[in-house]
Amino acid sequence: MSPRTSLATVCLSGALDDKLVAAAAAGFDGVEIFEPDLVASPMPPGQVRLRCADLGLSVDLYQPFRDLDSTDPARFAANLRRADAKFAVMEALGADTVLMCSSVAADAVEDPDRLAEQLHTVAERAHDRGLRIAYEALAWGAHVATWDASWEVVRRADHPALGLCLDSFHILSRGSDPAPIADVPGEKLFFLQLADAPHLSMDVLQWSRHHRLFPGQGAFDLPAFMRAVLAAGYAGPWSLEVFNDVFRQADPERAAVDAHRSLLTLAEATTGGTEPPPRLAGHAFVEVTGDESTGGVLAALGFARTGVHRTKPVERWEQGGARVLVNRSGAETAIAAVAVESADPPASARRAVRLAAPALPRERGPAEADLAAVTAPDGTALFFCRTGAPDDWSGDFVATGERAAGIGVTGIDHVGLAQPFDHFDEAALFYRSVLGLEPVTSAEFAAPFGLVRSRALADPGRDVRLALSVSLLRRGQWAPGVSEPQYVALAVEDVVAAARAARAADAPLLGIPDNYYADLAARLELPAAEIAAYREFGVLREETPEGAYLQVCTEVLGGRLFVALVQRIGDHDLFGWTDAPVRMAAHRRRRLARAAVRT
Amino acid sequence: MSPRTSLATVCLSGALDDKLVAAAAAGFDGVEIFEPDLVASPMPPGQVRLRCADLGLSVDLYQPFRDLDSTDPARFAANLRRADAKFAVMEALGADTVLMCSSVAADAVEDPDRLAEQLHTVAERAHDRGLRIAYEALAWGAHVATWDASWEVVRRADHPALGLCLDSFHILSRGSDPAPIADVPGEKLFFLQLADAPHLSMDVLQWSRHHRLFPGQGAFDLPAFMRAVLAAGYAGPWSLEVFNDVFRQADPERAAVDAHRSLLTLAEATTGGTEPPPRLAGHAFVEVTGDESTGGVLAALGFARTGVHRTKPVERWEQGGARVLVNRSGAETAIAAVAVESADPPASARRAVRLAAPALPRERGPAEADLAAVTAPDGTALFFCRTGAPDDWSGDFVATGERAAGIGVTGIDHVGLAQPFDHFDEAALFYRSVLGLEPVTSAEFAAPFGLVRSRALADPGRDVRLALSVSLLRRGQWAPGVSEPQYVALAVEDVVAAARAARAADAPLLGIPDNYYADLAARLELPAAEIAAYREFGVLREETPEGAYLQVCTEVLGGRLFVALVQRIGDHDLFGWTDAPVRMAAHRRRRLARAAVRT
Repeated sequence: MSPRTSLATVCLSGALDDKLVAAAAAGFDGVEIFEPDLVASPMPPGQVRLRCADLGLSVDLYQPFRDLDSTDPARFAANLRRADAKFAVMEALGADTVLMCSSVAADAVEDPDRLAEQLHTVAERAHDRGLRIAYEALAWGAHVATWDASWEVVRRADHPALGLCLDSFHILSRGSDPAPIADVPGEKLFFLQLADAPHLSMDVLQWSRHHRLFPGQGAFDLPAFMRAVLAAGYAGPWSLEVFNDVFRQADPERAAVDAHRSLLTLAEATTGGTEPPPRLAGHAFVEVTGDESTGGVLAALGFARTGVHRTKPVERWEQGGARVLVNRSGAETAIAAVAVESADPPASARRAVRLAAPALPRERGPAEADLAAVTAPDGTALFFCRTGAPDDWSGDFVATGERAAGIGVTGIDHVGLAQPFDHFDEAALFYRSVLGLEPVTSAEFAAPFGLVRSRALADPGRDVRLALSVSLLRRGQWAPGVSEPQYVALAVEDVVAAARAARAADAPLLGIPDNYYADLAARLELPAAEIAAYREFGVLREETPEGAYLQVCTEVLGGRLFVALVQRIGDHDLFGWTDAPVRMAAHRRRRLARAAVRT
Repeated sequence: MSPRTSLATVCLSGALDDKLVAAAAAGFDGVEIFEPDLVASPMPPGQVRLRCADLGLSVDLYQPFRDLDSTDPARFAANLRRADAKFAVMEALGADTVLMCSSVAADAVEDPDRLAEQLHTVAERAHDRGLRIAYEALAWGAHVATWDASWEVVRRADHPALGLCLDSFHILSRGSDPAPIADVPGEKLFFLQLADAPHLSMDVLQWSRHHRLFPGQGAFDLPAFMRAVLAAGYAGPWSLEVFNDVFRQADPERAAVDAHRSLLTLAEATTGGTEPPPRLAGHAFVEVTGDESTGGVLAALGFARTGVHRTKPVERWEQGGARVLVNRSGAETAIAAVAVESADPPASARRAVRLAAPALPRERGPAEADLAAVTAPDGTALFFCRTGAPDDWSGDFVATGERAAGIGVTGIDHVGLAQPFDHFDEAALFYRSVLGLEPVTSAEFAAPFGLVRSRALADPGRDVRLALSVSLLRRGQWAPGVSEPQYVALAVEDVVAAARAARAADAPLLGIPDNYYADLAARLELPAAEIAAYREFGVLREETPEGAYLQVCTEVLGGRLFVALVQRIGDHDLFGWTDAPVRMAAHRRRRLARAAVRT
């Protein structure tokens, strides 16, 4: 199914025209015009109407009209006059519906009959001009603060030009059950505004004004909400009204694409969808850019160079089930591509493109496999593979016959991708929707150079895991040389044994301070010999009642990448985040020490 | 009075050594060592002790120890073992006091006698090593959440090595009255942690962990709090424990100076101080960098060039009581200096330097006045003048004899200074403490390119006003050419008449969209002719029940400065912030239009 999609201009950064252009480019069918955007615009309403028409956008809503009703007759008369002025603006705009919020004013009308009467009056005036009023309960409204209270007022006012606007934030933030919405007559549902949000313990007005998210980025059950709205017979646009501080200052064209993707994904989640994501069966490979030293580190970690690409400067390194391609392009060492095993790679790629992922143009040699690939918002290429199928990607490599000595690596546990500040939620939604992953855990912690937020996604079988992280604010720009590295986490069964073998082969393992182990010994009841082994090899151990996550990290290689050896005990949803500040401080020390040696 | 000052390492960004160096350089007497900083440090505790001694810092507190008490005897035994390990660390560190927080764990002890008994047990162990335990109620503690509850536990446990740690945040965030603290025996007040905070409607734990501020930057009455603590007989250090997301990623050396300044200011506010700020009597002048065109704009705004500096490329422009110096240094047009009239300029400057303001070295000609000056955190020079006194600054200028035609400007209403993200709270405290201003109003609004926070400061007579603003997050880096201009607001008695005269002289006034006036007419009951006049000259009108703020702005001149003509009606604490988004959008349009003409 494909609902009509609409976007409130308040969702985006920029001037009104920037927003209209971005909404149209992203594929929206219409917009809500947010009054302050119009007021600051040099385009008269009639010109906005033409501009929208040129862009193929309908003007679905004008919003908001606040504080109509009043216990003071003179004030109510002034508010009606204000409404008339706005109705004239709407006529020029070509908007037939206005969003009217329940009043938050001190003079708001509490008496239900009087309130219904005032709404009836304004509805009559709107009706005379062929306009409609969509009445919405703000969660912090003075007397009307729930959707069922707004429905009671609308029912009582009983005017054909007066209906409801449902806003998922106001309903779900209060924990209201959306199911009874199904009983509202569909023709009284004039408009639908959608927003997701994280669960936050804060004033609901601040939560609403700053921390809304696009559907699928937060914690609300929007598919259940949508099913109730559709059951009522709502047939209007699905419109996004998302107040978010980050989106409000980010590139509007990208934010609009993210927004549109969220509605496509929500539509699929609501109705089941016609083309679900193919099943994933693990990481096929990770491709890193690097140089000779990158291969040297992989060799010290027990990998063998098992293949050389037929036409490109790319090496295949393998150990156990882990495959790392080293693209010796000479660029900064970083993750260039993540490849997942898909049951149906072309279907995975089609789905990704349908969700507005840019298809990745590939230079392909005559005998090379046609890898299905798209680009993620953070610039990482995403490949869909079926390793072992006829004509798979591995045929692009000439086997070297080299064999891995091995240090016990069994596969790729997960990939860690640092995100740019503006696009963290976009990236999370992208990987979630395009790969069909689910969010498994998230955290926010104080790192030595500022706050970091992390979110992990995985498929239900935990065969494919991604850990995304972002520096909130700006993380220590005063401290030169602090970057935000990506990493590849390799699964091992015994991290101490693996680290011992890696150390013997001169792998550049990261040293961890003795103070960490003194604290570990105070916190956990572990044998002294085990702690001594951890200390010897720089093992970090995150512990919960459900399990543990043990890791040994390398130094940061060539600027932006490190490798971790990871042993899991029990809990499969740990990512070592409680130890991240210690790891970050150690990485910075190594960097400063290396810089000192160079100078 | 000059209390011993201490700083918790958690206040600052960086690794432990960065923090110690910064605290010492800023003049702190001691530090609290935050455990995670030590755990991530390569310095063993004994080395930290030596490092602090070298830097002249005492180690006043080790913190925190969490969740000691337990209803589960085995768990309590494990916690005692953990405490013993930390006591050993403290001995090596040379810290004799540990902060112990009230437990937040599910197994926290509720029974007061059992809790007192467990605390007595751990105090006995500390006492054996010559250590002390400072017990603190976390505002979100499971059973002990108020300072009086923590005092009841300490009293009941009755051990000489067990006392209280008072944390102003935990006490004032709950709205508790600090006065009864005066009745606690001083020798049981083992430690004092100070933090300010803005009033926020949010979960207290999140509020505490992310939004604390240094004293004087928030809304708490810390002088009253301190008077109660001093009345009790507390004689230990005044220590800052401020968890703040911005400070945690900002330059630690600057943040430490800001922190130390806050304690000096608090000490003065608590005890009256020995050298209060001299009385201010208005803006003496504003100095802007610019070129010939800057003078041209001032001329069009009715100013006359009344003087030329004897030795420097500086012109004095005057109209009514407003004086603007144009420094034709060829640099970007911006505010270089703000000069205030002080009853005692040398005393003002001495006070500023005592509050860690860098004194401004001045190149001074043989016959020039010795201007008392310091540099503010945003780089603006701050001059203290006594215009009209013998040997005042105006003698540095040769009079031209030119007279101002005048458009009705009577003086400088205020100066608007955009601040860098990392130093907004620092700047507010600086201007407040150094000039003796008070915060009069603040706001946070959604501008076209992201969230902006503003705060205005003024002296009690409203003779000197400053408006500080900052872009939260990063404000539209996607939109090239969006800068954050500073401005000089000139007071006029009739903004329409002044704008008419300025327009006639070809001043580059900023055009405001018709849509703004349609909205104004809908919102306010104003005569149509008045709105028409506003529209003609681009007047913005902010209205409250107490008054109005009318302004006409120029375009942004030479990169970073605009001038506003300001008429106040009634309310003296308005700054036109509700109209700022409209003004910002108009400034961006002008900039794009000019760029288009150039290309």
